Amino acid sequence: MTAIHNLHLQKLLKLAEQAFDRGDHPFAASLVIDDEVVMSVMNSVVSEQDPTRHAELSLLSKAARQFGVVRLAKATLYASTEPCPMCAGAIYQCGIPQVVYACSGKGLRELIGRGRSIPCREIFQRAQRQVEVHGPLLEEQGLELHRRLNWWAAV
Amino acid sequence: MTAIHNLHLQKLLKLAEQAFDRGDHPFAASLVIDDEVVMSVMNSVVSEQDPTRHAELSLLSKAARQFGVVRLAKATLYASTEPCPMCAGAIYQCGIPQVVYACSGKGLRELIGRGRSIPCREIFQRAQRQVEVHGPLLEEQGLELHRRLNWWAAV
Repeated sequence: MTAIHNLHLQKLLKLAEQAFDRGDHPFAASLVIDDEVVMSVMNSVVSEQDPTRHAELSLLSKAARQFGVVRLAKATLYASTEPCPMCAGAIYQCGIPQVVYACSGKGLRELIGRGRSIPCREIFQRAQRQVEVHGPLLEEQGLELHRRLNWWAAV
Repeated sequence: MTAIHNLHLQKLLKLAEQAFDRGDHPFAASLVIDDEVVMSVMNSVVSEQDPTRHAELSLLSKAARQFGVVRLAKATLYASTEPCPMCAGAIYQCGIPQVVYACSGKGLRELIGRGRSIPCREIFQRAQRQVEVHGPLLEEQGLELHRRLNWWAAV
């Protein structure tokens, strides 16, 4: 299973770099239902001038409308970096049962040298319904992308 | 200041009931900049078939695009019920400095008889930038609305 997870995450790291190439922050998310990638979304905070347009939240909003919450209840959400509390909350609200991510929020914040946050696992553990979390699965590879792009200097 | 806060919150409780009347969950949020209500939004989770369309998150997404983050940095967000972790995360991401709410999430969950969550104050306290929080300011009035509408039976 980890091999399949890593394959999805490696594609997401490429998509995160595409987000950066168009002027957005390098984050991306995808949704898998019945072993099929049904949606992939890039961060669009800069291009849409909307700080709520993290890749995960944009994806969940679109996917809920397109597929309905019944199908979301058997989906896996992949994220290039660990979901922030806003996105973890959205994952919970949408009834997603499983989350997989490449690199950790903690690792990213250490790299950037600023920021504090609640880990996504804690957001889920302290809510009503449990969400299965796998990550970080590609910590070094994910952080290396952030390090190379050095995008936060402009934020 | 509390009198002005309560005035905004009482209007929001009416707007929350309007949301219920059109088939949505009874929650509403408004944004005040320079003492003026610049935007008011109802929950639209049912009508848009999108669990991310809590009143606060919808409002923040629209307000960021319409007013820009520089103006949001001096705005106050009012909510009919305490923001959930997703919405608290969005408030943080959007740089909102102050939040005011009528009734608590804890009170609502006790009324409903289910649910667990992280209080919005904790989401903010464990993040980088502090957000000022006032609430619950109308606990009984807010919970009475939820009790009367009994909306969660259908959720």
